[in-house]
Amino acid sequence: MNLDVMKKLSYGLFVLTARDGQKDNGCIINTAVQVASEPNTISISVNKANYTHDMILKTGQFNVSILSEQAKFDTFSHFGFQSGRDVDKFAEVSISRAENGIAIIHTDQTNGYLSGKVIQAIDLGSHTLFIATIEDGDVWDDTPSATYAYYFSNIKPKPEPKKRKGWICTICGYIYEGEVLPDDFICPVCKHPASDFRPL
Amino acid sequence: MNLDVMKKLSYGLFVLTARDGQKDNGCIINTAVQVASEPNTISISVNKANYTHDMILKTGQFNVSILSEQAKFDTFSHFGFQSGRDVDKFAEVSISRAENGIAIIHTDQTNGYLSGKVIQAIDLGSHTLFIATIEDGDVWDDTPSATYAYYFSNIKPKPEPKKRKGWICTICGYIYEGEVLPDDFICPVCKHPASDFRPL
Repeated sequence: MNLDVMKKLSYGLFVLTARDGQKDNGCIINTAVQVASEPNTISISVNKANYTHDMILKTGQFNVSILSEQAKFDTFSHFGFQSGRDVDKFAEVSISRAENGIAIIHTDQTNGYLSGKVIQAIDLGSHTLFIATIEDGDVWDDTPSATYAYYFSNIKPKPEPKKRKGWICTICGYIYEGEVLPDDFICPVCKHPASDFRPL
Repeated sequence: MNLDVMKKLSYGLFVLTARDGQKDNGCIINTAVQVASEPNTISISVNKANYTHDMILKTGQFNVSILSEQAKFDTFSHFGFQSGRDVDKFAEVSISRAENGIAIIHTDQTNGYLSGKVIQAIDLGSHTLFIATIEDGDVWDDTPSATYAYYFSNIKPKPEPKKRKGWICTICGYIYEGEVLPDDFICPVCKHPASDFRPL
């Protein structure tokens, strides 16, 4: 089995929000899909390690804000790379709320939202699959939804290309790696002297 | 509630195949997603009207062939727009089979496949949600997977722009709709005669 095939499945990207008492929280998920049309039903799969997971298991309600191609990396790191157990993710975010009272991310980085009411929670080991009927929802933007593939090619910052330190022979292109080029260095390829090298 | 929000969810596209005895069948689905990592689990939602649905419900096994951006509209119409109850969809297709004996579409229109073994079948009204562990799978192509959005913008044929029959005034652009332009016609806008019109 070649497990790389799992990366060939396509996904959207979403901020999943829940509210337990006065506590708001949210995380990033990629697994909101419509699973039935009659009645209108979606499923979301949520890692059990997420605080939002426990809130949904307890309250049976959530919102899904749909990230668009305008979404910024900061939004992913804010909701995805820290836990609501440690920080209040909504402390410095102006909150909009759907009719169910749960926060939604209503900005130029999202194109709509859905409110779900859980009808089944299925324990799948690392994750719980929540199946939910749609209680509410809206569209506010025509920007295409961000896919997981789009995130990787256009939103996630690329690692800086590693800068090699060294000297290049201007005659043949040979590269000497190192801070200092010895004065008596001779290019091993074209036999030109150190004076024909320039720093990279 | 604005139901258009359902169209903002992102999906891949897949040929879902099953085998019951000597009978092979397949249909198009858009709902294969990984729902747990430990154990490696996917879910697929299948409309109950599909013959493939009944075969999976009976046999508990299926394959998902992942359609890539090279997929042709013919493949969608072959597997998606006719029923295996009426035609043998594999009669004129050269079949590859995965280890589970079920057909896969191994062509330049797909980039990999997964074999699933159903662990739960959840009745959701119009659809059944099958939850399955991954038994096998492979990748054979680097072509990006086709998303539902990509299908609509790049694979599905655009309707031909409706051709208007008529005559255009070469002076002012007025259009007379009809097969035959009367000889004594006078453009109602710029008052030029029929001789200044040409067919559209």
